[in-house]
Amino acid sequence: MKVGIVGGTGEIGEGMAMRLSRIYEVLVGSRDEHKALETCECCLKAADEKGMPCSVQGLTNQEVVEGADVIILAIPYKHLDGTIAGLHGFEGKIVISPINPMEKKDCFLYVPPAEGSAALHLQTLLPESSRICVAFNNIAGNRWRDIDEELEYSVAVCGDDAEAKATVMDIIDRISLLKSYDAGPLVMSSIIESITPLVLNIARCNRMKDVGIRFV
Amino acid sequence: MKVGIVGGTGEIGEGMAMRLSRIYEVLVGSRDEHKALETCECCLKAADEKGMPCSVQGLTNQEVVEGADVIILAIPYKHLDGTIAGLHGFEGKIVISPINPMEKKDCFLYVPPAEGSAALHLQTLLPESSRICVAFNNIAGNRWRDIDEELEYSVAVCGDDAEAKATVMDIIDRISLLKSYDAGPLVMSSIIESITPLVLNIARCNRMKDVGIRFV
Repeated sequence: MKVGIVGGTGEIGEGMAMRLSRIYEVLVGSRDEHKALETCECCLKAADEKGMPCSVQGLTNQEVVEGADVIILAIPYKHLDGTIAGLHGFEGKIVISPINPMEKKDCFLYVPPAEGSAALHLQTLLPESSRICVAFNNIAGNRWRDIDEELEYSVAVCGDDAEAKATVMDIIDRISLLKSYDAGPLVMSSIIESITPLVLNIARCNRMKDVGIRFV
Repeated sequence: MKVGIVGGTGEIGEGMAMRLSRIYEVLVGSRDEHKALETCECCLKAADEKGMPCSVQGLTNQEVVEGADVIILAIPYKHLDGTIAGLHGFEGKIVISPINPMEKKDCFLYVPPAEGSAALHLQTLLPESSRICVAFNNIAGNRWRDIDEELEYSVAVCGDDAEAKATVMDIIDRISLLKSYDAGPLVMSSIIESITPLVLNIARCNRMKDVGIRFV
């Protein structure tokens, strides 16, 4: 299975690429293919140092959408509309949204669009046959890149396509010590996304670093 | 310090009374004082069996509001307006809302009032000098009553009065293995409340029981 990362050269995208390329064929996408190739170098070098396998390919975001079976949108909310407007070919694809629309004022606030969540907004931008799942929202970006550190978090997954959700949960359960939990239909996305500003506030108010969650 | 429980004869209220009466002077409130006395009997009997101390008093909800320094509103959202309308004397009191407005359709949904959360709605019902904190929202009701079992959960607390919040966090940290986390101002209440329908869905979709959360 080919896992594509649109925005694969950002902090979260690159960390995801590093971890996923040891398990799957990963397509790293960027607006700038040159940057995507740099990220691939990074992944290959890190894997080589550990004697780990690594399958990674640097491409444009459009080539990633065309070539991947599962597409992770590792982009900030503010770039979502613009990025999707410049891409086509999402028909039938599994699309993972780890996107959290939020603002920092006195504290971090969840600021969803009119549809109720970033994922529900994304649904209006993509063809009906695309299969959107929400996942990976509540893991601090820099934790992805600390590849020597285990990720010991719970990952709530929601979506309306049971098969797509099962595929996404299987991917999650193969990454480090992540554990996936089915959180129901896509309408649950607003709650999952909103946990991110909550854990950011908890980190700030309690002098903690990289707060995540576990369901127990 | 006297901790009062309005609705102290419901499942969560009674469980809270059992645990808190070993640490604080607890005032158990009910619309029906007779029921409150029954809950007190329950607490005293359970404590006696373990040779634990127990300080508990059965009263009307109104007497609880008058006598307690900290008041926990252990009532369902649908009874919030009616209960508060029948009570007075909240001026200056610390009021804890563990209330989660939600509905069960195909899955559990968070259904907040126009103000954005149950706690923000409560703020419009209480005098300005009352000091509202949100806490205890995400712990399954029946876990409170299993007094032989530890409660090993994180408790997110939010509120606009720093002193009140510190008092509430101190109470939390004395109960079983609960650990309090400052989650910021009262506006964060919607996220904390919404985690309850999320964990209920996770329990249902993943065949788990009494799912709670930990911040890690």
